[in-house]
Amino acid sequence: MKNLKVPFSPIRFVGDTLYLLDQRKLPVHEKWVPCRSSRDVWKAIRNMVVRGAPAIGITAGYGLYLGVRSFRGTRKNFMKKLFQEGRYLDSARPTARNLAYAVERILQQIALHRDKSVEHLKKITLTEAKAIHNEDILICRNIGKHGAKLFKRGSRILTHCNAGGLATSGYGTALAVFYAMKEKKIPFFVYADETRPLLQGARLTAWELFKSKIPSTLICDNMAASLMRAGKIDGVVVGADRIAMNGDTANKIGTYGVAVLAHVHKIPFYIAAPSTTFDLKARTGKDIPIEERPHHEVSHMHGKQLAPKGMKIFNPSFDVTPHQYISGIITEAGVLKPPFKRSIKKIQKILKWNLLKIRV
Amino acid sequence: MKNLKVPFSPIRFVGDTLYLLDQRKLPVHEKWVPCRSSRDVWKAIRNMVVRGAPAIGITAGYGLYLGVRSFRGTRKNFMKKLFQEGRYLDSARPTARNLAYAVERILQQIALHRDKSVEHLKKITLTEAKAIHNEDILICRNIGKHGAKLFKRGSRILTHCNAGGLATSGYGTALAVFYAMKEKKIPFFVYADETRPLLQGARLTAWELFKSKIPSTLICDNMAASLMRAGKIDGVVVGADRIAMNGDTANKIGTYGVAVLAHVHKIPFYIAAPSTTFDLKARTGKDIPIEERPHHEVSHMHGKQLAPKGMKIFNPSFDVTPHQYISGIITEAGVLKPPFKRSIKKIQKILKWNLLKIRV
Repeated sequence: MKNLKVPFSPIRFVGDTLYLLDQRKLPVHEKWVPCRSSRDVWKAIRNMVVRGAPAIGITAGYGLYLGVRSFRGTRKNFMKKLFQEGRYLDSARPTARNLAYAVERILQQIALHRDKSVEHLKKITLTEAKAIHNEDILICRNIGKHGAKLFKRGSRILTHCNAGGLATSGYGTALAVFYAMKEKKIPFFVYADETRPLLQGARLTAWELFKSKIPSTLICDNMAASLMRAGKIDGVVVGADRIAMNGDTANKIGTYGVAVLAHVHKIPFYIAAPSTTFDLKARTGKDIPIEERPHHEVSHMHGKQLAPKGMKIFNPSFDVTPHQYISGIITEAGVLKPPFKRSIKKIQKILKWNLLKIRV
Repeated sequence: MKNLKVPFSPIRFVGDTLYLLDQRKLPVHEKWVPCRSSRDVWKAIRNMVVRGAPAIGITAGYGLYLGVRSFRGTRKNFMKKLFQEGRYLDSARPTARNLAYAVERILQQIALHRDKSVEHLKKITLTEAKAIHNEDILICRNIGKHGAKLFKRGSRILTHCNAGGLATSGYGTALAVFYAMKEKKIPFFVYADETRPLLQGARLTAWELFKSKIPSTLICDNMAASLMRAGKIDGVVVGADRIAMNGDTANKIGTYGVAVLAHVHKIPFYIAAPSTTFDLKARTGKDIPIEERPHHEVSHMHGKQLAPKGMKIFNPSFDVTPHQYISGIITEAGVLKPPFKRSIKKIQKILKWNLLKIRV
C-alpha cells in the first residue's frame, strides 16, 4: 500500500486497530474512532461514523478480520466463527451492497484455502481486506487520471454533493479528478455546491478541498446559475449513484438542474464513477427508482425547526440526468463519450480485464 | 380600511397601539410586539421585527404619529417635534427607501396644513399614516387581481423567496396572485423554494401559505428542476427587488436559475412587483449593482457551524434575470408583456394616473 498515495485516508489500519474518521463530526471536529473488535466496527457502520458504499465495504473487510483475530480453536470452528461474524457485520446496514460484497468476497477466498492452518486463514482474511482497500484506491486513482485530462490549466470546475475521498478509500470519484490535477500541478479552481438538505457539499466536500489546499469556494445550490452566466464556470464534475445502459444517470438531488444549466451555458458536464455504478438491468433512467427521504431533513437543522409545523415537504434524494446533458462519463477504464449506449457496451470487456489485472 | 381584506395583517393599529407580527420568531412562534411610542417603533424596525421595504414604510408612518400623539405645546414646537421624530425614525435603517418616503410624505402633508390646530395636525398625521397603509393594500390587491388571470384552474405554481404579505401590508406581490386566486375560488397548488441561505421561503412563504390554507409543498431550491421535468410545474411567479427599463429583473439569488429552467421546460415565468420597482436610471440589468452578504449566512445556521472554518464562501444576495426569460411583469396597472422596453414606457402614464386615483 506504500505507493498508493491518497490525499487523506479516512480508513486506517495500524497495529491490529482500525481507525475511522468520524464523518458525523466533520467539518467541525476531526475525531478518529478506534475499532478493535467486530462489535466496534458494526457500531461504526450502523451509527454512520463511516458512510459511502465503497468506504463501508472496506471497513467491513477489516471488521471481519478483527472478528476472528483472537480466535482459538479448530479449523472447523474457525470457519463457523467467520460465517457468524460475516452475517453479523452484514446486518449493520442491510441496504449497502458493498458491505455484503466485501464479506462474501473474503468468505469465498477463505473457502478456497480451507485446508490451511487457522493462523494462516487469519492472515488470508487480513490480506483480502487490504486487497479490497487497495482496489478501491486504484479504481479511484484511475478515474482521477482519466478525468484530469479533460480540463485545461486554470479551469474553474463546479461539483455537487460529495463524491469524495470520504465516501471511498480517500481519493473519491468526482474529487479524484481534482486530486489528480493537483498532483499533476495543473492550476484550477473548484466551486462546491453546499447540497441541501444534508449539506454534504458544505460539510464534506468543502472539508476535503480545504484540507487538501485546493483553491475553492463554497456556494449555495441556487448560486451556480449566476456564476455560469458570469462566465465563471468552465466545467462540471459530479459523481453517480446509478447509471443506466443509455447513460442516464441518477445522482444526488440537484444534479439534473446543474446539468441543464451547464447545457444552456455551453459548459461541459461530466459524471465520474467506477464501472460498478452501471446497472445492467436499467435500460434508461426510467428504470431507476428514486428514494424519498424523511421530511425532517428539510424542515429541521441541528434540531431547530426551519419551516412551519405541519407544512408539506417533498424530499427526493436523487434525480435523473438524461444522457443528452452529459458530455462524458469518467470511469477507471477511461472517459466514455456519447453515444453512451455504444461506449458503455464497448467498455464492459475492458473493465472485466482491468479488474483481473487489479486483482493480480 | 374595512373593505380592504388581507389574508393576514402583519401590521395592526388598534386604540393608539401599533402591533407588529415579530418576523424573527416565525414560523415557530406568532408573537406580536406592541409599540406605544416612536422609540418602540424605531427598535422594531432596527431589530427587524418588521422587514420588507413596504412594511417598513407603513410602520414608520404609524411611528411618526406615536411620536407626536402626546405632544402638548405650540404649533411651532409641534412642527419641530415632528421633524425631530421623522429624522429619528429615518435613522432606524438608513438604506430602506420606503422608510424615508413615508416620513417625507407625512411631513409634506403637515406642511400643507400648518395653519391648523395642533390637535388637527395630529389627526392629519394619523390619517396620512393610514393612507400609506391603505395604498399598499390597494397596490398589492391590484397586482393579485391581474396576476390571477394568468393561471388556469388546477395550475401548479412555483415561487422563490418571500414576496408575500409579510414584506407588505399583508397581501404581498407574488403571493398576492395566490391570495387573489384563492378569493376567486380558483383551485391551484403552490411549490415554495426554501431559498437558501436565509430560508425566507421555508420560514415566511411556507408560513403564509400554511396559515392561509393554500395547498402547497415546500422544497429545497435544487429540487425545482426535477419537478419541472416531471411536468409538475405549470408556471412560476416571483417578486422583484429592482427592474431595469428593458425588463431585466434583479431578485433574490436563485431566481435566474429558476427562470432558465422554466424556459428550457417551456413553463411561463412571471415577475410580480409594484410600479415603484422600475428603476428609471437602469437601462439594463448591467446597471443594477448586486450586493454581497456576510459569509456566516451560508456557513452557520442557528449559531451552528455548517462548513469548515476558513472555507471561502460566495454569497450574493441577488441575481439578474435577463428579460428574454420573463413571460410577463405583473404590476398594479396590469400585466406587461414583451417587448418590455415598449410596455414599460407605455405603462408609466397609466401608473401616474392610477396613483392619483388611489390617493383621492
